[in-house]
Amino acid sequence: MDRLLQGYRRFRRDQWPERRRLFEVLADHGQQPRAMVVSCADSRVDPAMIFDARPGELFVVRNVANLVPPYGPDAAYHGTSAALEFGVRVLKVSDLIVMGHGLCGGVTALLHGAPAAASDFVAAWIGLAARARTRAMVCDDPVERQLQAEYETIRLSLENLMTFPWIADRVEVGLLSLHGFHFDIRSGTLSHLGSDGRFQPVPPA
Amino acid sequence: MDRLLQGYRRFRRDQWPERRRLFEVLADHGQQPRAMVVSCADSRVDPAMIFDARPGELFVVRNVANLVPPYGPDAAYHGTSAALEFGVRVLKVSDLIVMGHGLCGGVTALLHGAPAAASDFVAAWIGLAARARTRAMVCDDPVERQLQAEYETIRLSLENLMTFPWIADRVEVGLLSLHGFHFDIRSGTLSHLGSDGRFQPVPPA
Amino acid sequence: MDRLLQGYRRFRRDQWPERRRLFEVLADHGQQPRAMVVSCADSRVDPAMIFDARPGELFVVRNVANLVPPYGPDAAYHGTSAALEFGVRVLKVSDLIVMGHGLCGGVTALLHGAPAAASDFVAAWIGLAARARTRAMVCDDPVERQLQAEYETIRLSLENLMTFPWIADRVEVGLLSLHGFHFDIRSGTLSHLGSDGRFQPVPPA
Amino acid sequence: MDRLLQGYRRFRRDQWPERRRLFEVLADHGQQPRAMVVSCADSRVDPAMIFDARPGELFVVRNVANLVPPYGPDAAYHGTSAALEFGVRVLKVSDLIVMGHGLCGGVTALLHGAPAAASDFVAAWIGLAARARTRAMVCDDPVERQLQAEYETIRLSLENLMTFPWIADRVEVGLLSLHGFHFDIRSGTLSHLGSDGRFQPVPPA
Repeated sequence: MDRLLQGYRRFRRDQWPERRRLFEVLADHGQQPRAMVVSCADSRVDPAMIFDARPGELFVVRNVANLVPPYGPDAAYHGTSAALEFGVRVLKVSDLIVMGHGLCGGVTALLHGAPAAASDFVAAWIGLAARARTRAMVCDDPVERQLQAEYETIRLSLENLMTFPWIADRVEVGLLSLHGFHFDIRSGTLSHLGSDGRFQPVPPA
Repeated sequence: MDRLLQGYRRFRRDQWPERRRLFEVLADHGQQPRAMVVSCADSRVDPAMIFDARPGELFVVRNVANLVPPYGPDAAYHGTSAALEFGVRVLKVSDLIVMGHGLCGGVTALLHGAPAAASDFVAAWIGLAARARTRAMVCDDPVERQLQAEYETIRLSLENLMTFPWIADRVEVGLLSLHGFHFDIRSGTLSHLGSDGRFQPVPPA
Repeated sequence: MDRLLQGYRRFRRDQWPERRRLFEVLADHGQQPRAMVVSCADSRVDPAMIFDARPGELFVVRNVANLVPPYGPDAAYHGTSAALEFGVRVLKVSDLIVMGHGLCGGVTALLHGAPAAASDFVAAWIGLAARARTRAMVCDDPVERQLQAEYETIRLSLENLMTFPWIADRVEVGLLSLHGFHFDIRSGTLSHLGSDGRFQPVPPA
Repeated sequence: MDRLLQGYRRFRRDQWPERRRLFEVLADHGQQPRAMVVSCADSRVDPAMIFDARPGELFVVRNVANLVPPYGPDAAYHGTSAALEFGVRVLKVSDLIVMGHGLCGGVTALLHGAPAAASDFVAAWIGLAARARTRAMVCDDPVERQLQAEYETIRLSLENLMTFPWIADRVEVGLLSLHGFHFDIRSGTLSHLGSDGRFQPVPPA
């Protein structure tokens, strides 16, 4: 905790003075993010850092393995779906990004079973991506299988996004664009899911 | 999107060179975050920025209004609970932080009803915090009521965390500490929930 | 009128079928324009045509000579200021455009006096741009003087926009950008007001 | 902005070649629109599109909720009244149309109060239509009340037009006709206010 409080003091000393006005205006006028990101809770994958985004730019939901459940309004508490609804219907973002990443522990759990220590919720949650697992199991090589499962999980989340009628409607008429990205932790490479269904590195310069 | 890809190029040019080794080690050895944060999806409240945290330091789940549901393993998809389980039982974090913030749209929806446009999920999700609403409604002043509802939402999430047996057990024996924070967007002030149940500003220097 | 009703029938026959879905989604989900245009009521200068914009893209206020009054909330009815407030504070547009045009009758009235037939309101309204008139009167050539007065009117409206605190705030921190354009009716040339304070043609291809 | 400049390039490539002569003539001879439209700034309601009008056909003033203030020449800046004066007394249009539309945010603000974010001007401006609000409040059903308030706002603007002496005079002798229209965004239906005081759909074919 001391470490975090020291971090807060650095934030106040180094970043606050130049960002003070931006925060004041964001407080007075409200947020108007143009993009929303569904990404993983993993401590190595911060969307704001990877996109060098300013405060106010990205509406961010983070869960294990950047999963999107299929549309299904019912009595249960749907945290991710509620965040999607807030971002798309209330804030009216124009771009909706699913960002997966390399060496994802959630995807490892998908392929090899949830850790024994995590049987209450992780197994059920990650079961959302069972279809991604099936698709990736055709790979023999374990490293390649992990990568393909990460890719398939992103594709599946994008497919599930399209089951939300108020997302599909907006995508259909061009008011909202969906994007898939994968961040490779080791190399720092961001790859983009193209219209041909393949991930290709974004040129870093 | 162009703006985001330009941001990625700045990240690669300005931050990657000095962080490359850190990412390589984080890739080789896996993450070992000491702290987990439950915060809001709001675009103005990035935990990594407020705590000036490095990659690998914070395991972050973000949802609308930084809510934690009560413990309840069942057939439903519990994104926030799964992330808690992964952070606490698999990654074994030492500190678990609930961070709320000022001018929270989710809390406004709690007090005044979800926006008409957000009826599928936001209303049900925010209903999780109904008890925080009840407590805050004793305030007559609307600005103070919003602030108290933000505080109460943080308190409620902390109470709900203690309904998870594997959290309560670890807290009891001192392996895990729970913390409540509130970030004021306008003034940049971070307040900490003390053992006396009151929020007090963290000295910025 | 018959001509207009025939136009409506052409719209229904030729444009509606392909735009029906867009209108339905814009009805269900509300508008989310990213840009607002202040332009002239002149029948020859339709912003949607010049920017080939789709329904939902441009929030448009049109008055005589695309004037913006200085900020001054009081008991009077401020139509243009109300539209600015709605576009900037409610819809949270990112770009705010003042678009003037060639052969502008309002600017002609500014230079040569309002037509005798229009003494109730046009003279007072156009008087808002008196400063633009003063600046343009240094030109001897009447054609050049008209053009310079059109340019100065755009500059003055942009200056007046910055007297609105909630516009200046957002511009200062980068949440809103102001732009000046001039459309030449005869040549179809759109010119952009650059950061050097000069109008330069936008390459048409 | 890139999107708008791309739109301009499409306009130059696709529309300019066939409209070049029209613009040249409109530049040489000036505009002579036969109709003037008072419509809303809403991004979904472009009069030129709905009437499939050519450049030069419609003199258009757009403000929030297509309001016309009552006649009242004084020291204030009357943007809408100045535009009316220019259209009627200088350009001598034959038809003057007030066009409202469905799901009008200005009318919603009239019924439910201006958004908190829009307190400087929108509240005062929309207050112009207080009488329309009173008339519509007799409806119990909220959807019907919104529609009736849109209709009443159009009726009120038409009544206010008749308080301008140079409009009433011309209407009396048949030189000018006033018309009320309502465009339903969802269905694309244009309705016309008949002499019996009721709105009836214009047959689309």
